Amino acid sequence: MPTIALDAMGCDRGPEVTLEGAAALSREEGAPELLLVGDDAVLRPKLAGLEHDPRRLHLVHAPQVITMEDSPSAALAAKPRASVAVAAELVRSGEADALVSAGNTGAVTLACARAFERLPGVRRCALGSVYPTERRRGAKADPFSLILDVGLTLEATADDLVTFALMGSAYAARISRNPSPRIALLSNGSEAHKGPPAIVEAHRRLAARDDLDFLGNVEGVDIPRGTADVVVTGGFLGNVVLKMLEGVAETVTRLGKYAVEEKLRYKAGFALLAPAMKALRQATDWEQYGGAPILGFDHLCIKAHGRSSARAIRNALKVAHKGVRTELVAGIRETLERCPP
Amino acid sequence: MPTIALDAMGCDRGPEVTLEGAAALSREEGAPELLLVGDDAVLRPKLAGLEHDPRRLHLVHAPQVITMEDSPSAALAAKPRASVAVAAELVRSGEADALVSAGNTGAVTLACARAFERLPGVRRCALGSVYPTERRRGAKADPFSLILDVGLTLEATADDLVTFALMGSAYAARISRNPSPRIALLSNGSEAHKGPPAIVEAHRRLAARDDLDFLGNVEGVDIPRGTADVVVTGGFLGNVVLKMLEGVAETVTRLGKYAVEEKLRYKAGFALLAPAMKALRQATDWEQYGGAPILGFDHLCIKAHGRSSARAIRNALKVAHKGVRTELVAGIRETLERCPP
Repeated sequence: MPTIALDAMGCDRGPEVTLEGAAALSREEGAPELLLVGDDAVLRPKLAGLEHDPRRLHLVHAPQVITMEDSPSAALAAKPRASVAVAAELVRSGEADALVSAGNTGAVTLACARAFERLPGVRRCALGSVYPTERRRGAKADPFSLILDVGLTLEATADDLVTFALMGSAYAARISRNPSPRIALLSNGSEAHKGPPAIVEAHRRLAARDDLDFLGNVEGVDIPRGTADVVVTGGFLGNVVLKMLEGVAETVTRLGKYAVEEKLRYKAGFALLAPAMKALRQATDWEQYGGAPILGFDHLCIKAHGRSSARAIRNALKVAHKGVRTELVAGIRETLERCPP
Repeated sequence: MPTIALDAMGCDRGPEVTLEGAAALSREEGAPELLLVGDDAVLRPKLAGLEHDPRRLHLVHAPQVITMEDSPSAALAAKPRASVAVAAELVRSGEADALVSAGNTGAVTLACARAFERLPGVRRCALGSVYPTERRRGAKADPFSLILDVGLTLEATADDLVTFALMGSAYAARISRNPSPRIALLSNGSEAHKGPPAIVEAHRRLAARDDLDFLGNVEGVDIPRGTADVVVTGGFLGNVVLKMLEGVAETVTRLGKYAVEEKLRYKAGFALLAPAMKALRQATDWEQYGGAPILGFDHLCIKAHGRSSARAIRNALKVAHKGVRTELVAGIRETLERCPP
């Protein structure tokens, strides 16, 4: 039975929300075992008030908490028994198979970096995120593309980008059951010479490989089309682009207000924007997609949004469970060994 | 009377389109004089077929053409009398006050770099572009933000970014009649430490100045809101982000198709997307905004889209005319002297 360690304290909305997500999952058929890591005195009474399956939920005491405002390295040094550190340690020691946290991204990554090893060939890890696409792919007609990195490695070298392509390919093969995922680099044009030197060099190296299905460069607007199954980028561009894609409903709403004020034609069309945007917000609602995998360590960590609801936590736990069941980390290790960057 | 040199040959849709745009403008009250630069044998008969004011349109022969596919430096070396080079030379020599071209961006920039000087303090030039916003600003309630750089300087240093902020500020003061434009850096979060080192350093330097109204960092979704009047960024990120903003209607259409297939709630909302998108495409239609200024040279160049229609060419000529009338380049020079980067 897979076991997931949940950092029960690391969430903007408080431990009520992480516990509620865990409790809901525990009642589902085939759910994993969950180690709920945090302050026992806080968690125990809250959990008692929630309907849950006690055979699947186990409290593990961790007396300290790292907040969203804490500086990651200072906080981890000052709070060695913080919930995220204790949870990572449970995964390192084999008591759990994966870590889920909605806490401070820097602290989660650093806790992983201290407890885990990087896989051979990985210089920098990548945070991946999925985005809905028109096109479907793989055995289960998955409508999502994976974008990586979306914020861990702001300035990725050509080496990093090639490694991200391989890790993303292994992720898509396991999680989306897509045996030959199509890989693309995010750039400012489709031509091989487009972009700064690291992108151009990564393009050259990816195009020269025959162990990857490399499409070439794509642009931001190609992502929701689903041209590529895995979109490879540095963390700075990836983070900016992902937030724009997630915020597309807001962009459209602003444009609508601009256009009405300008008395542009198609006013009737703009009147329809408000109800359409409600639908659009649902489509781009990250809560339904679960958390974002941190790829490159020898153990799996799923990072949930800091503002996660109980539903988002439950979905992040499910992604972690799937990653364990499909032996995602072993798949990445194998890909990196078989096809070194 | 201001005079604009138009590269009449550099346009995907052919010289018919550049001439039609010029001819339409010549019939408007207060229009500038236009030097139409290109192959006389091609241009003269085409112009004869268009209704125009002959006192304002003058053909200048240039026998060679640089195509969109040409490599800029090789093409300029092989074709010294290409229309874009001859047009830039007319501006350098004072026969015209500004250059407008819809040609190969690399060749236009290189032709400018050869004919013009960079202003003191400018290490790299910036291509600016405007985007519609909900918020209005300045004496004429301008609904546009200026984003720069959007593609010339892919990897901008902190020095470059500070220079872009000053040039953008001068542009907004003259073109949008906005005496104290609000400047922001595009990054992946509002906090001062967000982004790669060049952004963090530029943030520190801009925040320390008292001659600019610096708001701090903004994200991509803040652009259509209009939080900032001038959004400063490196050319790689700026180009990717601008294309995503211009292509927002396509993104929404793709998401709509995803959502209908997924049978998400709010299906009725999605049915409204198609008519709403027609309106959105009009709002994000770059043709109505004219061309993009290349800032940093001692003469003005307006780069129109390669796919420009006659209307887009006419609007680019109008932006150039306004830049000349408002002494934009002198304003930028003065700003850089008064407030060195």
